[in-house]
Parts: sequence; structure tokens; C-alpha cells
Amino acid sequence: MKTFSERALRMQPSAIREMTKLSSVAGRDLISFAGGMPNPATFPLERLAEIAAAEVRNHEGRSLQYGLTTGFRPLVQWICEYVAEKGINTTPENVVCTAGSQQAIDLIAEILLDEGDFILVEKPTYLGALAVFVKSGASIVTVRQDHSGVDTDDLETKLAALPLERTKLIYIISNFQNPSGISLSAGRRKVLPSLLEKYNAFLIEDDPYGEIYFGESNRPPEPVSAVDSSRIFYLGTASKLVAPTFRTGWVIAEESLIRRLEPAKEAADLCGSMLDQRIVHRFCSSPEFAHHLDNLRVFYEERHRVMREALEQEMPDGISWTSPTGGFFIWLTLPESLDSESFLQEAITGAKVSYVIGRPFTPDNTAANCLRLAFSVEEPDRIREGIARLARVIRNRM
Amino acid sequence: MKTFSERALRMQPSAIREMTKLSSVAGRDLISFAGGMPNPATFPLERLAEIAAAEVRNHEGRSLQYGLTTGFRPLVQWICEYVAEKGINTTPENVVCTAGSQQAIDLIAEILLDEGDFILVEKPTYLGALAVFVKSGASIVTVRQDHSGVDTDDLETKLAALPLERTKLIYIISNFQNPSGISLSAGRRKVLPSLLEKYNAFLIEDDPYGEIYFGESNRPPEPVSAVDSSRIFYLGTASKLVAPTFRTGWVIAEESLIRRLEPAKEAADLCGSMLDQRIVHRFCSSPEFAHHLDNLRVFYEERHRVMREALEQEMPDGISWTSPTGGFFIWLTLPESLDSESFLQEAITGAKVSYVIGRPFTPDNTAANCLRLAFSVEEPDRIREGIARLARVIRNRM
Repeated sequence: MKTFSERALRMQPSAIREMTKLSSVAGRDLISFAGGMPNPATFPLERLAEIAAAEVRNHEGRSLQYGLTTGFRPLVQWICEYVAEKGINTTPENVVCTAGSQQAIDLIAEILLDEGDFILVEKPTYLGALAVFVKSGASIVTVRQDHSGVDTDDLETKLAALPLERTKLIYIISNFQNPSGISLSAGRRKVLPSLLEKYNAFLIEDDPYGEIYFGESNRPPEPVSAVDSSRIFYLGTASKLVAPTFRTGWVIAEESLIRRLEPAKEAADLCGSMLDQRIVHRFCSSPEFAHHLDNLRVFYEERHRVMREALEQEMPDGISWTSPTGGFFIWLTLPESLDSESFLQEAITGAKVSYVIGRPFTPDNTAANCLRLAFSVEEPDRIREGIARLARVIRNRM
Repeated sequence: MKTFSERALRMQPSAIREMTKLSSVAGRDLISFAGGMPNPATFPLERLAEIAAAEVRNHEGRSLQYGLTTGFRPLVQWICEYVAEKGINTTPENVVCTAGSQQAIDLIAEILLDEGDFILVEKPTYLGALAVFVKSGASIVTVRQDHSGVDTDDLETKLAALPLERTKLIYIISNFQNPSGISLSAGRRKVLPSLLEKYNAFLIEDDPYGEIYFGESNRPPEPVSAVDSSRIFYLGTASKLVAPTFRTGWVIAEESLIRRLEPAKEAADLCGSMLDQRIVHRFCSSPEFAHHLDNLRVFYEERHRVMREALEQEMPDGISWTSPTGGFFIWLTLPESLDSESFLQEAITGAKVSYVIGRPFTPDNTAANCLRLAFSVEEPDRIREGIARLARVIRNRM
């Protein structure tokens, strides 16, 4: 007797969920490099409290009502202006607001993918996206990633080998990728649109971390979507610009794609929170937003620097790590024979330091000798201490 | 060349969305019985503004962070206590918070339904649920509804005719149904669990309107889920208890079902808004909540009474309507030959009164001679005037 759907049976226990549970029960003792959340110290609490109260109190209750499925109009207008500064020319008809980028990925997969279709991802990639793709039943093809981001030669080889008549969706995080911290080079950004055209493929260009660059010289190049926006879903989110609680992300795409996303969003949850979208709009369209972003950059750059210095000082030979110029993450590679899951329990319960194992970041479980370190959450002195603890655990195993 | 998924191709342009767009652009001239939203005058703005500011300001930013996929723990605990008063015994392990009831319906359909499965719905039923079921590709079977709710004899006949080995999901709104306003009788509630058992079926018992009963004598009987909760998803929402913007609903079900819903929720949007869930928790667990519910009952009862009296006074012979004892809706039935869509444009642009046509509330488009009137949004004098306008349009057509 069949009970659950094929989609349900494909869903896996989640590393994010386990990690979040872990983080939520861990005491002050545990130094966590696991959860890739923004640091609550960066949230402008006083200002957001004022805005929240004003947005509830004013507008005669309209801010507490259902609203348009595609999003609060002034926010959508702001999004258009905001991405215009990145070189993306768009109009409100090209935008749908979503419950964070996660919902955007889920809805795009829903309107495009059937069993038998293909989704191409960098290796490694964001595990929340993999969860969506696994559930869809499409076949996941991995593409090589190097220090310039996704390898577009390997991508073309993989695309050329797939049946032309099936839908092919490519998923990349173009700036300071989760989990590797790597960004896509300007040159490769220019190559992608022609590949989409040639192979009838679609691209999700996910960009949650693009604003968090370490110094002006590390400001990211134009998004792929600024080169040529056809067949591209460009994703942004307020989760890393303001705070995750507002569950406000956005998709920018051609109108023919937006027209398919709108009913999918409506079936999913009718509409986002008008209050949250109004708060995000008020904060992001105020003059202090630019200053807030500057503060974020300095804040995370310091934590990255401290973690990198600690890694250089503490880690034994034979271990390498990425050198991101923005974002929240460093990706550590151990000797081939060492599985990062084999010492996770020891690290957490013994040494009191946590991280995310590498395996779930690949669909084929091939990054067992890697691990992800988030430098976003802990204070600098705890980052130093945490890396020292982790290095001791790893040295014991080598 | 295939572009969109089967699910995308099944999705229809939505009557809710068109209605919301209509409502959002309509001036003060248009009297709207279309949108089934709560009345913003019932939102406790001042109190919610205070709570929102305090919840942002306190908790060192934790209220703005990502949180548990299943929901903010104190809210989940409150939900358990709240439904216990309705006779449902449950624990936090049986609860998932969702983005309103809409997301609950979407996630339940996702974990249960494949093409070739069956979903049984009352006729008429909530069109947001139909949108989800249509997209799933399962076959939708309609069941007769009379003035005691879903006809359990007809339901059994339909269940008996379906293949035993396929998943069968039944969807009902047990109290003051959308769109009919009808409630399921106490007797029939007792019959449902044995049908679920006998035919290996699942039930979604959606209960957004149960608190809005008109006077103590109309308080709803115990939910089906209080009789026997096995194989039942009981759905509640803060959208009608507090305000829709908080996008906070909940599913109560057996733990084996919750364990499937949790990864589905996570793939959909990681988690709900912790701030919204904290605000809902603070307001609903305060002593003023009971008083607030009393106010809602009196508020909507008055509007219902005014609409009913106006209908009795204005409508020509040959037209009938339901007499709900709670909720937001009255369902009007015209003579068989009269299609409510045929005079919609005339009503809106000419007479300046709107409603929702009957057809989308049935999967087989068979309620063309019906229409839904929401008495929740307009003021009493405008309800009187709106019904007079509508009656004039209908009289012209008869």
C-alpha cells in the first residue's frame, strides 16, 4: 500500500536541519562554525524596532492584510532600482518576491523540472538547493568548480552530452559561494549566456552574499544577468542584507517565466508578509542602508581575517582551504583519506567545536574529505580558539 | 521542445489572484464582497505595534534570525494548549508551523499525492486548495455537500469506488466553510474517522474560521481530530485570529506524518519568520486574546446579520442563499440558467459591486449559477447598499 508520494520518498534527512537543531541546543561552550547564519550583532535592532512599530501602527491595518502575490509594490520598485546599480535593467513585471531565496529555488524547480530533466550544479554547492533538486526527481549533473568558479568548459561538455529536448537548469551562486566562498570570474560570466542559448538551458544565478565583499577592490563583477538576462533567474534576498526573519527574497526573470512563477507562489502560500516587505522596503530605501552595508563588509572581513590567520597558524600540513574575498564561508580540504564525518562527534562533544561535513554539499557524496567553516557567527577570540580546537582534533586523526 | 514542467502546465490563472488585483486597484466607489479577507478594523494595531517593537528590540537579535523549521518552540507549545481546549490532545512533536494554512495544504499534497492518486473535496470548496490539488496531478473527486456539511454517505460511495492501493486524501473545511459558510454536523464528525480507517484515506481538516461563531449557541462541535486524530491533518491559522501578515499557520498530525512534512517545509522556505511567530505567540498567549476573539465574533456577526437582512429584502424570488452561523461567507444560488460570470463585468464597472463567481470553487466548473459573498470587509451601510446594487443587476438578468 502506497502512502507517501515519490517526492516525499526522495526527500532526505537534512544536514541544515540537524545543524540548526544542534546550534539551537548548544550552550555557550560550543564554538560553532556550522550554521551559516548572519551575525545577530549586525542587525540594526533599534531602527528596525521603530520601523516595525510604525509600519504596524500606520496604514490603517493594510500592513497586516493579505497582499499581492508578487510582492509589495514599493518594495518591487526598490528592487528594480537596486539591481539597476548592478547593471540589471528590469521592470516590476519581471519580479516576484519570495520567502527568501530558498522559496525562489523551490518554485523555479517546480515550474521547470520533471523526472527525466537535468539540473547542473557546481561541486560543491548549497545543500538547500540540492534538497529541492533531489525532491524534483530530475537528474543532478555535477560540474567542476575551480578558483574562478564553475568551470565553463566542463559545463559545456556536460551540457553537450545531455538530450537537447529535455529541460536543463543550471544552478550557481556567483559571489562568495556557499559552501566554498569562491566567486565566478568576470570572464566566465560573459561566457554563460551563449551556453544557455546554445543548449536551451536556464540558469539560476543565486546571489545572497554579493554585497558582503571585503573592501572595494573585491566588489564583484556584474552579474551574469547584467550581461544578458534571457533564460536567467537572478535571485536576491534581504536575509543577508537586513535579517533572515523577514523571509523576503526576490526573483528577477523574463515576464514569460514570471507568469509561471506567480501561480506557483500563490499555490505555495498566497503571498508573503506585507509587514515584513514594508519593513524591508523602509529600511533598504533609507539613506542609512548604504552605511549599514559598509558596516557588514567591515564586520565580516574582520572575522574572515581572524579565521584565515588562525588556520595558517594552527592547521597541519596537507590541509588546504579557500581564500574568499567576501561572504560567510571557508571550505577546507583534508587529505583524501580523511572523512570529516569521522571526527564530527569528537569535535562537538569532546573539543566543543562544530562545522558542517562536506558530503551533503555534493549530490554524489564525494566531498567526504572536506568541511565547511562559517566565520559569520562567532566573535574573533572564539574563532581563534575554535580553529585551535579543530586543528587539535584533526591532528589527532592524521 | 519542452520548457515548463507538468506541474506548471496544470496550474491555472487564479480567481483569487485576479480578485486580489481587482480589490487592490478598486477605489472607494466599489463595494467589494469579493476578497474573503479579515477586516483590518479588527486588527489590534496599537497592541501589535508595541509587541512588534519589543520583540525586535529584545532577545539580542534572536527574533530576527533563522529558526527551527517546525516553528518557534513557545508558539508550538501554545498551539498544543490552544487545541487541547478543543479536545485535541497533542504534543510539540505533532506540530509544524507553516506560512498560513495555504502552505500546509501545499506541503501535505506534496508529501502524499502522485499522479494517479485521488483527492476528494466537497462541492463547492476553497479554491486555494483546488489550485494545489490541480497542480499535483491527482484526480479530484467531488462529494456532495448539504446543510450539514460534506455528505458522508456520498463520501463513502465515492471512496468505495476508488482503488484501495492508491493514496486518497479528503479535504474539508469543517466550520463555516469557504465558500458556502456551512459547517459539518457533530454526527458526521463522528463518522469520518471510521471511513479513513476503512478506506486507508487521509483527511485534511482545515479550520481557519472555527473561532468566528455567532454567539455561544453556535460554538462548533469538537473537531474530527478530537474524535480520533489518526490519519488526520488538523490545520489552524493566525491569519483569522490575529492578522494574515504573520503568515503563521499550523498542522497537527501523527508524528510519522510530521516527519515527512518537516523536510518538505525546509525545502520550501527553510523556516517561517521567528519574529512573526513570536508576535503571534505573545498576543495569543496574553489574557487579552480571549477578549479579542469575543470582539471578532460580535464584529462579524453584525455584518452577517446586515447582509442576510439585505438579501431577504432585496433579492428576487428564485434565489437562495446559505445561513452560516459563523465565518466570513454566504453562498448564493441563482436559477440554473443564470451564469454569475455573465454579469460580473456589469456588476463591477456598472453597479460598482463585486463578488466571486461560483465556477472556480468546483473542479468541474459546475457551480456557474452560484456566487460567493464575503461580508467580512465592508461596513454595514455599504453592505446594505452593495446587496441592493447586486440585486438590481441580477433582476435585470432574470
